[in-house]
Amino acid sequence: MGEPVDVTRAKLLDAAHDLLVERRGTEPSVAELCARAGVNVAMVSYCFGGKRQLLDAVLDRTVVGVVAQLDALEALGLTPVETLRRHVAGVIQNYLHYPYAVALGERLGDPDGRLAAAFAQPLLAFHTRLLERGAATGDFRAGVDPALFFATLVGMCEFFFSARTWMAAATGSDVDATLVARFTTHCEALVLTGLGT
Amino acid sequence: MGEPVDVTRAKLLDAAHDLLVERRGTEPSVAELCARAGVNVAMVSYCFGGKRQLLDAVLDRTVVGVVAQLDALEALGLTPVETLRRHVAGVIQNYLHYPYAVALGERLGDPDGRLAAAFAQPLLAFHTRLLERGAATGDFRAGVDPALFFATLVGMCEFFFSARTWMAAATGSDVDATLVARFTTHCEALVLTGLGT
Repeated sequence: MGEPVDVTRAKLLDAAHDLLVERRGTEPSVAELCARAGVNVAMVSYCFGGKRQLLDAVLDRTVVGVVAQLDALEALGLTPVETLRRHVAGVIQNYLHYPYAVALGERLGDPDGRLAAAFAQPLLAFHTRLLERGAATGDFRAGVDPALFFATLVGMCEFFFSARTWMAAATGSDVDATLVARFTTHCEALVLTGLGT
Repeated sequence: MGEPVDVTRAKLLDAAHDLLVERRGTEPSVAELCARAGVNVAMVSYCFGGKRQLLDAVLDRTVVGVVAQLDALEALGLTPVETLRRHVAGVIQNYLHYPYAVALGERLGDPDGRLAAAFAQPLLAFHTRLLERGAATGDFRAGVDPALFFATLVGMCEFFFSARTWMAAATGSDVDATLVARFTTHCEALVLTGLGT
């Protein structure tokens, strides 16, 4: 008797995540995915309908987790400055854990607007509320465009992880825990000072 | 009689640049490159030794141009604040003109350290000198790590162009001249304020 479909699905999602991390975003084949998951090669098709849908599901799972983090952070009721500080650190941690996510999203595209609705809109709404709250308390200067702020914040965190060749050349070392900690402090200072706190 | 090799090389470099821009970084085939350049299909091999070397040469040409811009900017002898403002605008313009460059560099890798020596080191040296100069005049706070600053500055400019799906979802519009101008003003303000000016 086989295992429940939910278990097989979870194994394939974990295998896809692990292989995308190991190969820095290069897509694994169906055979590689099934070998890593320890399931029969027909299971990608059976559980998801195909590799494209499996990769969509990996991305959806990441997005759900990231949006849940934003909700949890807001629920803490911290000051705008402390909320933004933790958000910056959270974005960097997400890049550490899901370094493939943005590039995979671009490659898969978003023909039905699902990713936009599930991720870009909640993240933009989070930034909009946070910038408004900080402007009201006088911690952030007024009039910062939330969509452009979203682009700069995510981008400044991403390059460090996506451009390893350049970063290794510039820093003279590989990305390790010490460098990530220094980078987090740097980004927090640049963003918090940059908003006029 | 054929045309001089230099002319054929330049046609192939321009064709590779144009196709990389049009296809948002997807590599063209040798047949496509030669068709676009209007040259015989054997010319990639004859002029460059292969497609990999042609793509290396496209990247080298971009890097030489970007480093020449940095030298020209420094030669103007402007204040640190004005130099940084123009540099931010210049990075954004370079992403408009060479949107494929960073991803192509990552894909090709840098086995012999040529890109690191030709690009990352001069750019890092430029940032190091600029941050030191600004700290000496009191315009920038002291102690900003040049390599981390390099990562955040380049990254904040890159995301806007590399993540079109997310940006279209977040801004509700395509990247056009008006949005690029607003984005440039936003980045200048974030970076200049972020450094403590």
